[in-house]
Amino acid sequence: MATVIDGRALAKKLNQQTSQRVQKMQEDFGMTPGLVVVIVGDDPASQRYVRNKHRTAQRLGINSIVEHLDKDVSQSELLKLIDQYNNDPTIHGILVQDPLPDHINEKAITRAILPEKDVDGFHPVNVGKLYLNDTTNYPVSCTPKGIMTMFKAYGISLKSKNAVVLGRSAIVGKPMAALMLNEAASVSILHRLTKDISEYTKNADIIVSATGHLHTLTKDDVKEGAVVIDVGQNINESGHLVGDVDYDDMFDKVGYITPVPGGVGPMTIATLMQQSVDLAEWSINK
Amino acid sequence: MATVIDGRALAKKLNQQTSQRVQKMQEDFGMTPGLVVVIVGDDPASQRYVRNKHRTAQRLGINSIVEHLDKDVSQSELLKLIDQYNNDPTIHGILVQDPLPDHINEKAITRAILPEKDVDGFHPVNVGKLYLNDTTNYPVSCTPKGIMTMFKAYGISLKSKNAVVLGRSAIVGKPMAALMLNEAASVSILHRLTKDISEYTKNADIIVSATGHLHTLTKDDVKEGAVVIDVGQNINESGHLVGDVDYDDMFDKVGYITPVPGGVGPMTIATLMQQSVDLAEWSINK
Repeated sequence: MATVIDGRALAKKLNQQTSQRVQKMQEDFGMTPGLVVVIVGDDPASQRYVRNKHRTAQRLGINSIVEHLDKDVSQSELLKLIDQYNNDPTIHGILVQDPLPDHINEKAITRAILPEKDVDGFHPVNVGKLYLNDTTNYPVSCTPKGIMTMFKAYGISLKSKNAVVLGRSAIVGKPMAALMLNEAASVSILHRLTKDISEYTKNADIIVSATGHLHTLTKDDVKEGAVVIDVGQNINESGHLVGDVDYDDMFDKVGYITPVPGGVGPMTIATLMQQSVDLAEWSINK
Repeated sequence: MATVIDGRALAKKLNQQTSQRVQKMQEDFGMTPGLVVVIVGDDPASQRYVRNKHRTAQRLGINSIVEHLDKDVSQSELLKLIDQYNNDPTIHGILVQDPLPDHINEKAITRAILPEKDVDGFHPVNVGKLYLNDTTNYPVSCTPKGIMTMFKAYGISLKSKNAVVLGRSAIVGKPMAALMLNEAASVSILHRLTKDISEYTKNADIIVSATGHLHTLTKDDVKEGAVVIDVGQNINESGHLVGDVDYDDMFDKVGYITPVPGGVGPMTIATLMQQSVDLAEWSINK
């Protein structure tokens, strides 16, 4: 029977630490970490995400600002707003919520955010540092970073492990691969054009699934005792939120597994909060 | 019997194209691509590499400058020299030859070179763009880029292929993995802490070996018809330059293989020349 990796409990603990760090920063430096979340348009899911981030940040004592822009805002106006916060010393993290309207060049927006305020870790220079296994301070994409925190909390070592990442997105798959490689795992990155995924997963000690597809893996695709991290957020046939993998089916076979909901999701937001405080701390030491 | 991937012939052809591009640039824009190679100290191997690069560049019509600095040069002097060439509009590519003396921070040097003059493709922002599969122009590490040219020249498609990279260096292994992933291969990155390399290579359509160890792979480790790219440059028991893999042993089993010498080596220098002209061309369009 698998050990359930309890993302909710871990996120709660991490948030407590973050909240204490915020307090200490106020005591020691009279400074409050500042986070700006920019949302463009009225996509309900995006609004829900942003509200979640905003509430959590406020609860932890972070100075959280939400900039809600009209869906017709021009790219230059958005860039001007980013520039304003780039130059605002009370703001340490800037995040522009996905997705953006078609008339806005998402890449230009990502790159306009100063690398040292890039709380999502999406700027090329931060991505490059991750791949170079740079030992200085820089932000990293929050979902994979949160998963690394999970590994650590459950004493799961990556060294010499066969790790498989399903999905090659810039937000999850690729940075996840880099983080595990930096910890000396052997890493395979697979995707929808992979010939035979189970050929890899059957031999994997650690699997991170970020395919966004139901039934990506069943118990026949995993080996006894494997660690299974499920990044998927899918709606199943009965209308429930579930992950990529068949959780119940493989539960007795694998060693560790994250539930959906209550696994990776809460850790992503908690890591965003943690990283907001990281950026504020790093700005002091600069 | 394997098809030998003739790196020497390919490099010759690529150099001819590069030379023609240099001529055309002079005719069209009255401009000559400028490359600076900085070498610190008297390491004989480094001197040989630099001499090779310099001669090839001159032969192709590139304005090649070698800056030979004393091994005791200070970091600030070296940075000053880089800054000088960063600001020199006649110079389009700057390269600092590895290795540097211990008193110099190699990372600081790599990052001092302007990304748009980073002919080695080592700057974090260029590395980040590679991992983000950015579609704009930026330099990429020359050895893996040269290997991609080999694949193309021999009609070897990467799409849906199982690819294995042996070695996770920032210069070869990691950028090689990124380039193949960007072409939709399924990519496994292995290294000296991998439990069982042959478990991966036996199932690989494409293998790139950059371990720097003799006898890394024999015919028992590869599957029938595999493509084997050997980046290794090792001296064998009889004092000859050989690659990582047992070439003769697997020759009849694999589909394609690169010899050492005459495989990846010549393509690396030819790609450096190609990329010097790329940088010059991109500087015009900016």
